Amino acid sequence: MALIVQKYGGSSVADVEAMKRVARRVVETHQAGHQVVVVVSAMGDTTDDLLDTAAQITQHAPEREMDILLSAGERISMSLLSMAVNELGVQAQAFTGAQAGIKTTSHYGRAQIVGLVTERIARTVKDGHVAIVAGFQGISEDDDVTTLGRGGSDTTAVALAAALHADVCEIYTDVDGLFSADPRIVPKAHRLRRVTQEETLELAAHGAKILHLRAVEFARRYKVPLHVRSSFSEKNGTWIFDGPANPELKGLVPSAALVDPQEDPMEQPIISGIAHDRSQDKITVTNLPNTPGMAARVFSICAEVGANVDMIVQNVPVSDSTRANVTFTLPEGDAQRTLNALEAARDEIGFDQLRYNPNIGKLSLVGAGMRTNPGVSAKLFEALSDAGINIEMISTSEIRISVVTRLDDLDRAVQAVHTAFGLDATESEAVVYGGTGR
Amino acid sequence: MALIVQKYGGSSVADVEAMKRVARRVVETHQAGHQVVVVVSAMGDTTDDLLDTAAQITQHAPEREMDILLSAGERISMSLLSMAVNELGVQAQAFTGAQAGIKTTSHYGRAQIVGLVTERIARTVKDGHVAIVAGFQGISEDDDVTTLGRGGSDTTAVALAAALHADVCEIYTDVDGLFSADPRIVPKAHRLRRVTQEETLELAAHGAKILHLRAVEFARRYKVPLHVRSSFSEKNGTWIFDGPANPELKGLVPSAALVDPQEDPMEQPIISGIAHDRSQDKITVTNLPNTPGMAARVFSICAEVGANVDMIVQNVPVSDSTRANVTFTLPEGDAQRTLNALEAARDEIGFDQLRYNPNIGKLSLVGAGMRTNPGVSAKLFEALSDAGINIEMISTSEIRISVVTRLDDLDRAVQAVHTAFGLDATESEAVVYGGTGR
Repeated sequence: MALIVQKYGGSSVADVEAMKRVARRVVETHQAGHQVVVVVSAMGDTTDDLLDTAAQITQHAPEREMDILLSAGERISMSLLSMAVNELGVQAQAFTGAQAGIKTTSHYGRAQIVGLVTERIARTVKDGHVAIVAGFQGISEDDDVTTLGRGGSDTTAVALAAALHADVCEIYTDVDGLFSADPRIVPKAHRLRRVTQEETLELAAHGAKILHLRAVEFARRYKVPLHVRSSFSEKNGTWIFDGPANPELKGLVPSAALVDPQEDPMEQPIISGIAHDRSQDKITVTNLPNTPGMAARVFSICAEVGANVDMIVQNVPVSDSTRANVTFTLPEGDAQRTLNALEAARDEIGFDQLRYNPNIGKLSLVGAGMRTNPGVSAKLFEALSDAGINIEMISTSEIRISVVTRLDDLDRAVQAVHTAFGLDATESEAVVYGGTGR
Repeated sequence: MALIVQKYGGSSVADVEAMKRVARRVVETHQAGHQVVVVVSAMGDTTDDLLDTAAQITQHAPEREMDILLSAGERISMSLLSMAVNELGVQAQAFTGAQAGIKTTSHYGRAQIVGLVTERIARTVKDGHVAIVAGFQGISEDDDVTTLGRGGSDTTAVALAAALHADVCEIYTDVDGLFSADPRIVPKAHRLRRVTQEETLELAAHGAKILHLRAVEFARRYKVPLHVRSSFSEKNGTWIFDGPANPELKGLVPSAALVDPQEDPMEQPIISGIAHDRSQDKITVTNLPNTPGMAARVFSICAEVGANVDMIVQNVPVSDSTRANVTFTLPEGDAQRTLNALEAARDEIGFDQLRYNPNIGKLSLVGAGMRTNPGVSAKLFEALSDAGINIEMISTSEIRISVVTRLDDLDRAVQAVHTAFGLDATESEAVVYGGTGR
């Protein structure tokens, strides 16, 4: 008997029929003898509808009231899902974030979990009932409702799984798991059977959309095995855990995913997958005085306005070593206020121009096998060169290489690299992407 | 400076525009120098929509989850209203029932308030902010969300007003106050300037729809002055309080309503108003053995199935004094299970027939002036007789006479009695019924 935390996203509970399908799956898991804790997001567009209504009232909504407002969506879906499970003859109880003991900071809209008091949930599953918890929300020290921001429901699920020492946290979504690349760009992308937590972190951090970075960080820190899978099929998805499976988990994991790639490097593919990201912009500060501290000043200004700088390149022109150009990438939402802040500091810093380019794309090649395989970058550059694609910036970590290209080139770049590294699926590998009509 | 509790019903906050109008009124009250606590219902049909969705999932929803589900509507409206007030430059904070300290029993769907911990609300208004509280909900000893059932938001408002020692509890609705009769039936009905708590209780208990009985009982027990008025106009509505006004209240009440009718009986109209009720059914148990305890047995069976018996008449036929017919009225929703329970006890009780008549109406004449004015019932019966309307049952209290008529006769009965008691408004009394297009 395993303790399983299941998280269902908004598309999995978009309407009453979807809700009933989820309820059947919860009941099947319970009837297979497992203890089940369910974390559920708001139904379909509920949260967006609430945001729209608020926007009709004010452009300056107090954050505290916004959080109470937005938390209503998950309260509705958790109550309805609990009813649907009860209707199938299995006792279920629904819990708000507060009732589930999810204690957070008071940073409305992006609260951090500071602790979990899981007695009530633990008692519920111990009594043989299913516990259904509202995702995305918690309660602050002041007894106020908070929301966890983007990826909040994933984070709720992983945090609960960690606190309850669950055997696995299943993340249900509308695709079959993690893929070697986005199947909308690479039709021959294959589903990953198993990846390490570290690889998942790199994929999530560099554009893979299925799992939120914060939840992955949580899973990695507290060693929570994850299983990313579709709520529209019974198939295994992608397993994410390091080392050998514990006894309970072993019964759940298909044999092909049981092999620990870190124990048996022959099993470890060099490259697990390719993430891409269209949401970054590029800023170049030209003719900066090439003195110590000037680049630092640029990035301290970025930090002051909360811009999340990703890649950085500094070029010193051959003709004039007293000047340098600094180029960096950042999320598109951070660009305008960063440009404004830098412009305001133009005289102080003494640069020439700010060049702004929103039309860039980033490709990231991720694989734990890179550690022991030299020549990965050479192969990457060759594949891009053969495809006639220019590389504008490069950054690397131990298990990742990222390159920036023109936005127009990004899809072709992903396709070319996918093929070059032998990731294209063969005919026999049935790859299903997407749910039933969503 | 008065402390004013304002309650806005679902029709007052049906959409974003209505919400903004309510916000303006809240802000005006605050800017007039008063402390303001607002209790708000769910927007328009929100609660019905949630009920519909739940009904698509199950016909046997667990009460606990149903209460969490239904409480979402008020959480949405309180958050949005708080945003709308803040948008107008007045600081407001929204509070759930739990946050407002509304402690209840665990009777989901019809929880009773057992206590109020109002520190947080009191602090909020003391700090010069507006407190906005979700109506209809509270929290049980087990930390579970409860709803208060019908009239729940009125009850929340009056209970908060009592606990905070508010100077007045304003009940905003889509009509201008309490009327001498339902203006849809009697176009010449006039708005009541002031009525006693006791009269309001009788009117609410016998069919007047504007105020819920439970809230009126609360107001009477804790001596909370009420002001029932329209959120669609600035006019004074109906004032409900006994005795002289306290100093704060005095500044709010128009002079015509300041006269205490109980101090100055000449000012007290004999009749305040006429309530009517179409929602009662009539059951007759025929040929019951006329022995002590047999009628009691009938009504103990009614009590066992939770039927709310109202009027009772027992007739002993002249021809056979060993038998009696017992007739009683009860809410239509209670009729079927009462009939079933009585049928099951037929042999035990030994009656002949159960006669069931859903087509009855009840007219109730209410007025504290009745106490000192004999002849009210004679005038009532004469008016009905002149209109050719047959009286099937009669019951009286110290300040009320109720009669049961055929359902078809009810409207004519209300009109005839309204005229007979001189309640018809003159041309000069501008009576406005209904809101702006709702």
